[in-house]
Amino acid sequence: MNAEAGKPVAERPLTAKGRATRARVLKVAADLMFEHGAATTSIDDVKRAAKVSASQVGYYFGDKQSLVRAVIEYQAQALIEGQRPLLERLDSFEALHAWRDHIVAMRMERQYVGGCPVGSLASELADSSPALREDIAAAFLRWREPIRAGLAAMRDRGELRPEADPEALSMALLAAVEGGTLLAQTLREVAPLEAVMDAVLAHVRSLA
Amino acid sequence: MNAEAGKPVAERPLTAKGRATRARVLKVAADLMFEHGAATTSIDDVKRAAKVSASQVGYYFGDKQSLVRAVIEYQAQALIEGQRPLLERLDSFEALHAWRDHIVAMRMERQYVGGCPVGSLASELADSSPALREDIAAAFLRWREPIRAGLAAMRDRGELRPEADPEALSMALLAAVEGGTLLAQTLREVAPLEAVMDAVLAHVRSLA
Repeated sequence: MNAEAGKPVAERPLTAKGRATRARVLKVAADLMFEHGAATTSIDDVKRAAKVSASQVGYYFGDKQSLVRAVIEYQAQALIEGQRPLLERLDSFEALHAWRDHIVAMRMERQYVGGCPVGSLASELADSSPALREDIAAAFLRWREPIRAGLAAMRDRGELRPEADPEALSMALLAAVEGGTLLAQTLREVAPLEAVMDAVLAHVRSLA
Repeated sequence: MNAEAGKPVAERPLTAKGRATRARVLKVAADLMFEHGAATTSIDDVKRAAKVSASQVGYYFGDKQSLVRAVIEYQAQALIEGQRPLLERLDSFEALHAWRDHIVAMRMERQYVGGCPVGSLASELADSSPALREDIAAAFLRWREPIRAGLAAMRDRGELRPEADPEALSMALLAAVEGGTLLAQTLREVAPLEAVMDAVLAHVRSLA
């Protein structure tokens, strides 16, 4: 038994090698849960796919629920990082349309296979436990924040009318991405994603 | 072994009692899959919850995939039936807003627990098999058709401009319902659903 095994997982100091192993196992777990769902992915599946022992998975992540929480954090981080240059300055109509084009292009590139990594976790886990739901809600809000901030900046500069509500509009854009991505995945075509994002963006533009 | 057991499931003639049993088992299976997901719901779970034998489940539905297909059909039917009076005449702004209000009220009533029954199946199953994906895609398109028809009628009567595209707008509305419902479920608040539906409906109205 490792001497650190009694400490809460988050407090365990990791060596560089330990951090690398943890990162590798986390990616394997995230990929498995993205493909097969979180519920049907067991610690044993992760152990086998990552070629580590079950006790190593436990050492780095604790129990299954803690592993799922780490995967939620991983997917939120990956999603936001992937859009970061665009998200950081969503404060013009051109930037909003470039962000829309990026999301559409990414779905086309993946040929509509796989949904939104955070949205898929939300659909599966939102009612399974309060802790998981809260983690996913926080991930959505983190993703939404730069969208809200960009719209607020546009309003403050007078590029959107005072009655434009950055809170509601940014939420509408996020919901458009989620609903459009799910329908694009199911219908295997880009039309639903383009239709809903363009409708919401046209509404934003009407507030100029 | 029942004499009908060799026939394809759909061809088996059912007595009134058989139809009632089949309907009861189907509702139990749909409820279990809605709560726990389709993948983690086994024929054994359905058998136990419906208090029938596994061979009865097999007799009425065939294998697990066929049972899931019957559940997709059941949920699509239930969803469309539940909105039928509204869907049948979605050909005015008032009717579109009444439909929006109905969807919002339903989510509030359920306190945002549980997603869209069809959307949840889509998120879980769209990549699991082509047959399931196609069934769910067909369900979405069946739901969308009256929305498209209502918007087309408005355009034909000149209440929407000729460039209004009922195909794209109805798809946008469906995506808004799906994305808004998922975010409302995750955040446990109505704001995302209202925000995205109102944004898309404002865009539709701007085409008057």
